[in-house]
Amino acid sequence: MSLMTSMLMAQKTLTLEDVMSGGNNWYNLQPENKYTQWWGNTPVETTADELKELLTGKSIVTVEQLNKIAGEKVVSSGHNVVLPYKGKTIARFRHGSKRMEIDWKQGKVVWSQDIPEGAANQDFDSKSKNLAYTIKGNLYVKTAEGEVLQVSSDGSTDDSNDIVYGQSVHRDEFGITKGTFWSPDGQKLAFYRMDQSMVTGYPQVDISQRIASVTMDKYPMAGETSHQVKVGIFDVQSKKTTWLNLIGAPDDYHTNLSWAPDGKLLYVFELNRDQNHVQLVAYNTATGEIEKRLLEERHDKYVEPLHGLSFLPWDSSKAIMQSRRDGYNHLYLLDVRTGEVDQRTYGDFEVQQLVGFNEKDKCVLYLSNAIDPRTSCLYSLNLEKPRCTLIGVGEGVHAVSPSEDGTMVIDRYSSPTVPRSIDLITTHSVRGRWPNRSVNVLTAKDPWQEQGYKIPEITSGSIKAADGVTDLYYRMVKPIDFDPAKKYPTVVYVYGGPHAHNVDARWHWCLRGWEAYMATKGYLLFVLDNRGSEWRGREFEQVTFRHLGEEEMKDQMEGVKFLKSLPYVDADRMGVHGWSYGGFMTTNLMCSYPDVFKVGVAGGPVIDWKYYEVMYGERYMDTPQQNPEGYERCSLLGKAKNLKGRLQIIFGYNDPTCVPQHTLSFLRACEDAGTQPDLFTYPGDGHNMFGRDQVHLHERITRYFDDYLAR
Amino acid sequence: MSLMTSMLMAQKTLTLEDVMSGGNNWYNLQPENKYTQWWGNTPVETTADELKELLTGKSIVTVEQLNKIAGEKVVSSGHNVVLPYKGKTIARFRHGSKRMEIDWKQGKVVWSQDIPEGAANQDFDSKSKNLAYTIKGNLYVKTAEGEVLQVSSDGSTDDSNDIVYGQSVHRDEFGITKGTFWSPDGQKLAFYRMDQSMVTGYPQVDISQRIASVTMDKYPMAGETSHQVKVGIFDVQSKKTTWLNLIGAPDDYHTNLSWAPDGKLLYVFELNRDQNHVQLVAYNTATGEIEKRLLEERHDKYVEPLHGLSFLPWDSSKAIMQSRRDGYNHLYLLDVRTGEVDQRTYGDFEVQQLVGFNEKDKCVLYLSNAIDPRTSCLYSLNLEKPRCTLIGVGEGVHAVSPSEDGTMVIDRYSSPTVPRSIDLITTHSVRGRWPNRSVNVLTAKDPWQEQGYKIPEITSGSIKAADGVTDLYYRMVKPIDFDPAKKYPTVVYVYGGPHAHNVDARWHWCLRGWEAYMATKGYLLFVLDNRGSEWRGREFEQVTFRHLGEEEMKDQMEGVKFLKSLPYVDADRMGVHGWSYGGFMTTNLMCSYPDVFKVGVAGGPVIDWKYYEVMYGERYMDTPQQNPEGYERCSLLGKAKNLKGRLQIIFGYNDPTCVPQHTLSFLRACEDAGTQPDLFTYPGDGHNMFGRDQVHLHERITRYFDDYLAR
Repeated sequence: MSLMTSMLMAQKTLTLEDVMSGGNNWYNLQPENKYTQWWGNTPVETTADELKELLTGKSIVTVEQLNKIAGEKVVSSGHNVVLPYKGKTIARFRHGSKRMEIDWKQGKVVWSQDIPEGAANQDFDSKSKNLAYTIKGNLYVKTAEGEVLQVSSDGSTDDSNDIVYGQSVHRDEFGITKGTFWSPDGQKLAFYRMDQSMVTGYPQVDISQRIASVTMDKYPMAGETSHQVKVGIFDVQSKKTTWLNLIGAPDDYHTNLSWAPDGKLLYVFELNRDQNHVQLVAYNTATGEIEKRLLEERHDKYVEPLHGLSFLPWDSSKAIMQSRRDGYNHLYLLDVRTGEVDQRTYGDFEVQQLVGFNEKDKCVLYLSNAIDPRTSCLYSLNLEKPRCTLIGVGEGVHAVSPSEDGTMVIDRYSSPTVPRSIDLITTHSVRGRWPNRSVNVLTAKDPWQEQGYKIPEITSGSIKAADGVTDLYYRMVKPIDFDPAKKYPTVVYVYGGPHAHNVDARWHWCLRGWEAYMATKGYLLFVLDNRGSEWRGREFEQVTFRHLGEEEMKDQMEGVKFLKSLPYVDADRMGVHGWSYGGFMTTNLMCSYPDVFKVGVAGGPVIDWKYYEVMYGERYMDTPQQNPEGYERCSLLGKAKNLKGRLQIIFGYNDPTCVPQHTLSFLRACEDAGTQPDLFTYPGDGHNMFGRDQVHLHERITRYFDDYLAR
Repeated sequence: MSLMTSMLMAQKTLTLEDVMSGGNNWYNLQPENKYTQWWGNTPVETTADELKELLTGKSIVTVEQLNKIAGEKVVSSGHNVVLPYKGKTIARFRHGSKRMEIDWKQGKVVWSQDIPEGAANQDFDSKSKNLAYTIKGNLYVKTAEGEVLQVSSDGSTDDSNDIVYGQSVHRDEFGITKGTFWSPDGQKLAFYRMDQSMVTGYPQVDISQRIASVTMDKYPMAGETSHQVKVGIFDVQSKKTTWLNLIGAPDDYHTNLSWAPDGKLLYVFELNRDQNHVQLVAYNTATGEIEKRLLEERHDKYVEPLHGLSFLPWDSSKAIMQSRRDGYNHLYLLDVRTGEVDQRTYGDFEVQQLVGFNEKDKCVLYLSNAIDPRTSCLYSLNLEKPRCTLIGVGEGVHAVSPSEDGTMVIDRYSSPTVPRSIDLITTHSVRGRWPNRSVNVLTAKDPWQEQGYKIPEITSGSIKAADGVTDLYYRMVKPIDFDPAKKYPTVVYVYGGPHAHNVDARWHWCLRGWEAYMATKGYLLFVLDNRGSEWRGREFEQVTFRHLGEEEMKDQMEGVKFLKSLPYVDADRMGVHGWSYGGFMTTNLMCSYPDVFKVGVAGGPVIDWKYYEVMYGERYMDTPQQNPEGYERCSLLGKAKNLKGRLQIIFGYNDPTCVPQHTLSFLRACEDAGTQPDLFTYPGDGHNMFGRDQVHLHERITRYFDDYLAR
């Protein structure tokens, strides 16, 4: 590219089509990528046409080859193929309603399984090739040999969803994402049964029908009757189900189901509904009876079990457990024979993820933000030495995929200035020497720069929280063609709730595309992770207990104080925008500081925690019965009367998470108080908008600031 | 008031609190009033304290007197008391759950009746003192003596509303407003039974509950399965019900039930679902069988029976009937023995209301707009001479209440310059001499002027419709402090549908308070009754048949052409606003003429007639099956993509008339097309907003024009 062209192209302005994932040019502006997987301990790159060795580029198998063997087009892209067995030349993929395996060396289809029509929640066990799945409320297993076993029969077959088997329970809280759990040998299936017949349904109206219809979506609201969960063990051989004789009350939580390596015990973290007492219980899977209560944890605010046990591959009597008992999420070595617990990581940082084990060196691989709260880097902890070592680059945010034996990892990361980097790293210490050997597989160039777009200046820094002590991290996006002598309209983007953060050491400091777009329109954007958000430890999070919103807003106002100290921020033109918890924060800020924020856009907001679900809501707020003053104080219904600036609330008309009752109740409160919010909704959409609706939404949000903040 | 004060006060500016009926100063700005009723043939004025003779002011009975007789406070205001019996000193009123009669001459309570708890749809017969009422879906009669008779038992007692007795049917179309009809002697009760078990319910969500709940509101949509109505006759003496052996299909319409004076026959107007064939059938009330088919009427577009028979008080073989068969609604004398029909009023005007009979002179009293389409004046038609005479002032819009024998009327009217006038007029010709004697009881002064408010100039005139021939009437409201050299932002207010009009010869040409408010803010307002609207005859209305919206918009665009010809109208700042049918028109105009209208506010709009109800919808559009092209062409879903200007749609979240599916489908269409309407809703409100919500709504509407049209 000539200099001339480059300069001309540097005039290109980002549009919503460029920066939103639903936009028609988004894909072209993503950093270059490589798609990888493991074949045992061999790193593999997949392309549309083939699977090849990541390092050498040597072809392993092609799509053409597989189709030829099958005698028909069974594979359309290499991305759909996995190589599940170390050392075996077997490719597995789905074709239509079939799951198939081809041995390309033998040149034949070695196994296939018809997937029953309507099978949902599929859980395929790679070892046994048994498939668990649900149809409506019932659970089934299809064996590798093709026999269909009906595990349950009293699940709801109508739309009531009164009783459901094999699905995620407790509304996906406590680390639960599914409802079936295969034993290590794939011959026993632990599963959830959830009875929600006693739970009130929230009416969700579908206007896409000829005549609008309604579904009653089971939604247990804070303080109201909750569902009841049981755990069963289905034995594929005997075709019998054993129910665990669970401890606790019917509406307690049963989380992080973990199989013992030999399949004889199932470990369950049992949490009481009040969420301040968790017990780890081992059940005998043959009898369903309690084998042992291993340990318990209490806290006067709450405990939140999020992770199961990970047994050491080399010692089935010990498992890695995670706990925040010392104030930060750390790794503990648990002796399951004695219940003895031994803390293995320490410090004012969080272990963010247990990645796996390096079996050769008896190391645990994990991610933590020990270097900087905004980072997520890979560490290896030798359980025997003990020694803890940084693996790979000590900056940015990493996503790591270990090989089968954990001696190698594919490490993907980005940092503020690195759009994407992929490294292949050996974690195995070679004769005790460090650093680990590492091969860079890809370092992507900045696609925005490459394509000649104007890029705003994006920085990150810290300010003190309202407690005067805690560091809070922010991201600032300056307007395109920034002139420090000018004063810019400024928009605070906020989330603010637990289990999320907005500022980290990813590319562009974790910039959201819309912020870049706003920068092109002359806005300054500011994003601050207040106390209550994630990756900062227990106290940082729990300071909000029983009064959600209050400390968070105090911190955001410290951000505003900081912004006002900057000569180029126009204090008379400050706006705020956020979604979900951020919609709660936005509405709250607009009503609590009516003279600070002139314009706000709140998406899918919580308005009153009593309309939120039992699991999340009661963890942070207790029940409305236990904490009436807290609910009252934190409700935005009473603040509706304070609204002064322009506030647009936008919600998915069928939001099953922050149900529309939140927004509608706030409207009613405003109407009764004589204040004037604005409103929009997306019929058919849920808690978030995707695809073209996402572009439409952000055009809408931007227009609102253009209408009322820019001028 | 000194000149000085008056001039100072003339600076007062109307606010929404002044001009909206939900505003806190609205009542103070209403023209002075007197509350009147008839005591047989004696005109009575009621006040909070007493009832007195209207002309002499002589007290008849006081509230104090009545309470003294009762021995407790049973009457709180004179306005709650009626004098039902000519010549008898008996006052009737309700006290708590009692209906009572006191003879103040005798000084005692002469009758009382406990009203059963939850009694709805009460229909009290003054002659027999029998009370018909419903509880949930069933119908009951309580006799004067206090006996409770259960008329029906299979009515729905749950919330399904599958079967309902004694309630209005056919969604209040065809002049139906209730479901029980006492025979002249009050001993037989004709009633409706409506089976709507086959009708789909529209989900209406109530967010005011702890957890939002849903009601399935029976709503037959155009072309879909409709409800089925039967008519029964309950005999209070025998306690037996006789069902009429109704002609026609199960989903035909049975309207305008009219008792023969002797109670032996019941006349029913039977209309087929296609609404192009009506028959008048007399049924024997003892057997339920047909006695006679009296007459029928067909029209290739539609016929719409809206009025029952009114038997001549002096000849039970003849009744007054209304029909639009000659193109205008006129009075016909029907001989019920022969079915012979004799037209009695003629001309290119509409009989608007049959007021009653002057028994002495054998005259029919009725209102018509013979003088000017915008007026509604009282006429007396002598059925024997025949002679038709104007009674009272031949201008303005009159509301008339006749005395028992019709020889006198209390005539209330307003005209563009008369806020309110009340006259007592004898309709009885005294020795053949006219004009009738008239006493003015009240001529209210202009309360706005009196209280020193600036009043905009309000005028009315006519332009030609898009057909080049028809006169259309408009109202124009000029901005306060109008300067013809300036250019003003202009808002068209529109309704445009059948059965309604906006411009008539009432006070201020029927001005809506909001228009005056807008005038104070510097807007010019324009309101035009297009073809399709009421009071102008059949052809004027039916020109829209099977393509609602199209002719109406052409006429509105003639209005725009006229506006653009005025130097003080700013053609670059034209807005449009309307509700219901007017919301349909507003949305339609915004999408059909995107370069004409910059801003629109559409309330409770119809978006696609397939979402509207069977009765109204199919009358004007036929069914979607019969008229697919018409439905397609008139749907605004396909026009969503054309939206360019700013359009805010506002709807009652629980609108049972234009169900939310209209607005929500339009949003979805806009979202899919990438256009950006705005939105607002009032949870808990229906098709219209009342009280404080009405003020809130108009503040909102005004703000929208201020935001996007004024500047």
